[in-house]
Amino acid sequence: MYNSIYIFGLGMMGASLAKSIKSNKLAKKIYAFDSNGKSLEFAKEKKLINDYDDKDYKFLSESDFIIICAPMGSYMKIFKTIDKYKKSSAIITDIGSTKKNIIDLSKLVISNPDDCFLGSHPLTGKETSGVTSYENNLFNKAVVLVTPTDKSNKILIKKISKFWKDMKCKVTVISSELHDLVLSETSHLPHLVSFALVNIILNTKSIKNIKDYTGGGFRDFARLAHSDALMWNDICMSNNQNIISSINMLIKELSLIKTMVESNDKSLRLYLNRIKTKLDKK
Amino acid sequence: MYNSIYIFGLGMMGASLAKSIKSNKLAKKIYAFDSNGKSLEFAKEKKLINDYDDKDYKFLSESDFIIICAPMGSYMKIFKTIDKYKKSSAIITDIGSTKKNIIDLSKLVISNPDDCFLGSHPLTGKETSGVTSYENNLFNKAVVLVTPTDKSNKILIKKISKFWKDMKCKVTVISSELHDLVLSETSHLPHLVSFALVNIILNTKSIKNIKDYTGGGFRDFARLAHSDALMWNDICMSNNQNIISSINMLIKELSLIKTMVESNDKSLRLYLNRIKTKLDKK
Repeated sequence: MYNSIYIFGLGMMGASLAKSIKSNKLAKKIYAFDSNGKSLEFAKEKKLINDYDDKDYKFLSESDFIIICAPMGSYMKIFKTIDKYKKSSAIITDIGSTKKNIIDLSKLVISNPDDCFLGSHPLTGKETSGVTSYENNLFNKAVVLVTPTDKSNKILIKKISKFWKDMKCKVTVISSELHDLVLSETSHLPHLVSFALVNIILNTKSIKNIKDYTGGGFRDFARLAHSDALMWNDICMSNNQNIISSINMLIKELSLIKTMVESNDKSLRLYLNRIKTKLDKK
Repeated sequence: MYNSIYIFGLGMMGASLAKSIKSNKLAKKIYAFDSNGKSLEFAKEKKLINDYDDKDYKFLSESDFIIICAPMGSYMKIFKTIDKYKKSSAIITDIGSTKKNIIDLSKLVISNPDDCFLGSHPLTGKETSGVTSYENNLFNKAVVLVTPTDKSNKILIKKISKFWKDMKCKVTVISSELHDLVLSETSHLPHLVSFALVNIILNTKSIKNIKDYTGGGFRDFARLAHSDALMWNDICMSNNQNIISSINMLIKELSLIKTMVESNDKSLRLYLNRIKTKLDKK
């Protein structure tokens, strides 16, 4: 059990994390900081955290383990603050959706990054944001990707991995490069496609009231487009090369499908069937 | 209450329909036909249907209301059989995913189509197919699109609409042309995109065990790609013009997003935010 865990950024994810740390009894004290004072007040009232910092970062300087749960656009400032105030034995992780850029940034700003910072990415979340949207069991059984570099301290990797396992998560260790490639295809591109599909529908003048015409299939992908636009912008900018390459692959695949629909022969049926068969085996 | 309702095609959808007709007490007897004798036997054992036809179509010729729940590729043969055996007062609907082609086909094959056939499309379903996958409440609260032509008999429209309302569905009446356009954008294209995204991931050699890396976002869209490949091929062929045009729109939209990611300015953030804001209002 940690003496104190510090959550830097207290939105929906940070607050859900605090709740799970508490229910799994992983820290004696949970502290937090957020640029929004009301979020901190809410979390303290709800007993998600024990206390919160103002600009003197008193609790930050006492904490053993710091978890960044903030938009990736603010990491530069946060890394600088942490590096300035943290005690030398404190370790740091984050929950950001891309990893290579963040690790590069940590090397620029944090002293001894290999010994104190290790990137994590829990594959969990929901569309609503803000501290009041926190969930009790958001991290339960979630996959967490932990992304060390070649130089990461082995004890640090063990500590961070153990933390997530104690949170009842399933930990996979991969490189940040592979992480960003995989996530580009399995998460970032699908989210962008959701925004694109929704935009096409919203721009179709003959569709006046979309709810009159839509069932579960639409709701599933439109759900993704309710996600926070600022966060998705950050993700795209932070993983732009992989995302551009994924978009190119999808355009190529869609062009192929279009040719098969136009050809009106058995090629589309074979294509769909081949994918379904492969997927069913997974 | 109908004396007898006849379900032509007894897969997951047909069997779920039978179950709901029974629980809503909308027919004294439910009969069925399917090319797979085992499906019929299963449904009779489970008391989803009262009895089933063999090739003499005895029950078909007695039934008041016939609902086609078969793959669209088999409609020509089914329409011919129904036209040959049905009694003159019997009415017909279907649950196929495209409507214009089906209505055109009905005009070619069925006598007095305006008086006896009206297309329906319940926006409900699931990925697993086959009679044993039937669900108790699949139709409960589903949107059903009913697609009359200018010449459709008004009493027929009322009867079919009333049937779906009695099934606890929400009925919207639209033209088959608008139906096929809307569904192309809200359902057919998203399903094809799911197949395309899954194919990209399956073809990425560095992704060995996809389950190690994926959370809810992936499962949501991969779910769609588990759908029946033959059915989706039928849908694409039957709504090919709209689908080609939808694919073109998506390729254009993805190219636009790619330009915004490449530009690394605020354009992507504004784009995503505009879509989310519009969607949240819906």
